[in-house]
Amino acid sequence: MALAKRLDRLGTETAFAVSLAAAEWAADDHRVYPFHLGDIDLPTPANIVQAMDRAIGDGHTGYCPGAGIPGLREVLAQDVGARRGMSVSPEAVTVHPGGKPVITKFIQAVMDPGDEVLYPNPGYPIYESQIDYFGGVARPYRYLPTQTGFAIDVEQIAAMIGPRTKAIIYNDLQNPIGAESSQQEREAIAELAQRHDLWVLSDEAYFEMRYSGTSTSIAALPGMAERTVILYTFSKKFAMTGWRLGAAIAPAQISTAIAKLNTNNESCTTHFVQVAGVEAVTGDQSGPVAIRTELQARRDACASALNDIAGMSVAVPNATFYLFPDVTDAMTAKGFTDLPTFARAALEATGVSFCTRLHFGREQADENRSYARFAYSGLPVSQIAEGLGHLKAWIER
Amino acid sequence: MALAKRLDRLGTETAFAVSLAAAEWAADDHRVYPFHLGDIDLPTPANIVQAMDRAIGDGHTGYCPGAGIPGLREVLAQDVGARRGMSVSPEAVTVHPGGKPVITKFIQAVMDPGDEVLYPNPGYPIYESQIDYFGGVARPYRYLPTQTGFAIDVEQIAAMIGPRTKAIIYNDLQNPIGAESSQQEREAIAELAQRHDLWVLSDEAYFEMRYSGTSTSIAALPGMAERTVILYTFSKKFAMTGWRLGAAIAPAQISTAIAKLNTNNESCTTHFVQVAGVEAVTGDQSGPVAIRTELQARRDACASALNDIAGMSVAVPNATFYLFPDVTDAMTAKGFTDLPTFARAALEATGVSFCTRLHFGREQADENRSYARFAYSGLPVSQIAEGLGHLKAWIER
Repeated sequence: MALAKRLDRLGTETAFAVSLAAAEWAADDHRVYPFHLGDIDLPTPANIVQAMDRAIGDGHTGYCPGAGIPGLREVLAQDVGARRGMSVSPEAVTVHPGGKPVITKFIQAVMDPGDEVLYPNPGYPIYESQIDYFGGVARPYRYLPTQTGFAIDVEQIAAMIGPRTKAIIYNDLQNPIGAESSQQEREAIAELAQRHDLWVLSDEAYFEMRYSGTSTSIAALPGMAERTVILYTFSKKFAMTGWRLGAAIAPAQISTAIAKLNTNNESCTTHFVQVAGVEAVTGDQSGPVAIRTELQARRDACASALNDIAGMSVAVPNATFYLFPDVTDAMTAKGFTDLPTFARAALEATGVSFCTRLHFGREQADENRSYARFAYSGLPVSQIAEGLGHLKAWIER
Repeated sequence: MALAKRLDRLGTETAFAVSLAAAEWAADDHRVYPFHLGDIDLPTPANIVQAMDRAIGDGHTGYCPGAGIPGLREVLAQDVGARRGMSVSPEAVTVHPGGKPVITKFIQAVMDPGDEVLYPNPGYPIYESQIDYFGGVARPYRYLPTQTGFAIDVEQIAAMIGPRTKAIIYNDLQNPIGAESSQQEREAIAELAQRHDLWVLSDEAYFEMRYSGTSTSIAALPGMAERTVILYTFSKKFAMTGWRLGAAIAPAQISTAIAKLNTNNESCTTHFVQVAGVEAVTGDQSGPVAIRTELQARRDACASALNDIAGMSVAVPNATFYLFPDVTDAMTAKGFTDLPTFARAALEATGVSFCTRLHFGREQADENRSYARFAYSGLPVSQIAEGLGHLKAWIER
């Protein structure tokens, strides 16, 4: 009996193979430094856990509305709006089991088969997978290296937009490369979206995971709120990755469609987790501050150690918990010509486990530098220094 | 800007409108007896909550595998297999945020656009919605009233199967009608599925929500495990509806496809909720026993009160927490010709809120009796008696 043909178009996160390889290497009694994980090894702040326990005691263990509990929609509307300088109504907010579900629901809500969707590449691999899966045409746009990091190739985007282009996915404060748009770049993308009447998914997973400066949302630019869906998540700011709690902030007709998809797909997001989300947003904020402080120290340790390795260089982003060094020269010096072989050799020689550019969307034809992604959210400063010390010694040997 | 055309094919649970009407009536300071809710007003057993708290303390707040944590997949394989007399491997089990996601993932995995899927009607409305949404042809099959409840019209099913028929959805211990297949009926459906090479979704949400007798799974019949996906849920047995925890038990190729959909759609199911699920399955079972005992008392009170109303009659099912009385004669006696008007009048006259046949799939052309669905899981025996006493007085006035 055949399965459905649409499954042939479904991609996945190939980074899980890196986790598996690291776990197997560790199981063989080797020390592993897990720079591959986009996860946080810090506990969720206690006030959030306590709020969840109270919610269960209060009987919030039954079904709740598919769009989310009114209390959480209200505080998210207020908080998300205030941080972006825009007015958000509770009806614009729908609650989801994580930020990721917003990607598939956005695609389902705006893209017909044959429509083109532009997306960042390298970027979160699920964009590409979901566009393909629902029969769209995935059109990757690229980043160009600059003195301070990376910039979107806006001219490429302008040239790619055609009559079938329906939407653009924009991930300022970017995973994996850590890039942040200048205001000029952000406005250029907004202008293109308006001129060509495109929907925009603004993936703002790292909007509050930043160490200096202020985040700006493309949705807050004039004329953008009515065409933009914001992806919001509790995962990073509150160290709640495994809780599965996120939200979409969307124009009215999309919000209604997404809520209907929720009713069909999962009924509702875990009831008492939503109540805990209210505490996360409105309660004591010392928890997320401590999380950011710790991650900033890790960023500094990680960036400094990577830049200290011959043949590696990375700009230091103000946000996310990723570093995306150019490792081309280090690879060449060690005699490696492809990223997977280099990464595997590094794991076996040093215990340092990391993802590469190849885990973040299909490689483009014109790429001529090699990049790796180091996540510093999963291990303390001491291990960052120790692991990258081993990596330096191996590469410079 | 247009939204995607597929949204035009997306159905929903219209029963939410009943909840809304009841809530508005209650807000106007009226007493409401909520027989419309397929939810449970009893607390989740304490040992399960405690296990979740321990899991958070142990740091299970990060991501986990998309297919589910190994520990839960193992105990579900053992438990689900043992209760059905079949051998289930942990790899066959995938974990989901509730039982409902298994419906959409089954449809996505086996049905191509244009394929026909047979489904029970009246039945859970999401079957119809998801078949339509993914471009299939939804073919409803009916139930016939018997002396002891309802039987599937197997002859109708046999006549409906054609070259484009790809799958059949089977919900023994049925919502809303409470029907249970005889072994003969179950075998007849299994025989049709094998003869015509169909995939089967066996929705077993109420497999352990029964008060006498023993449940039997169609998946345990010879030749069926390799073509059947079992929908399992923690919602009913453990009073965990709002926790969102369920599972699919599926043949290897479907299990792999479903795990990949999980990675795309939601990353994983809430990590510490899965750890609590291990306790639910393997820990102290006095909680679910107490839940069933209470629900049985409610069933008896509800059935007896409904059968005591002139013009209403219902057989008493051994399972589920629904009663599906024929209310045709009561409606006629009160001068009502349609179910929505009758239900609305009953709410306003007596405070009794219930769903009707019209909330469970598109009405078929040949239906000539009117049915309502009373859920007794959401209110205690005293309120069941009080509410249905008011209903009786109004109808017989």
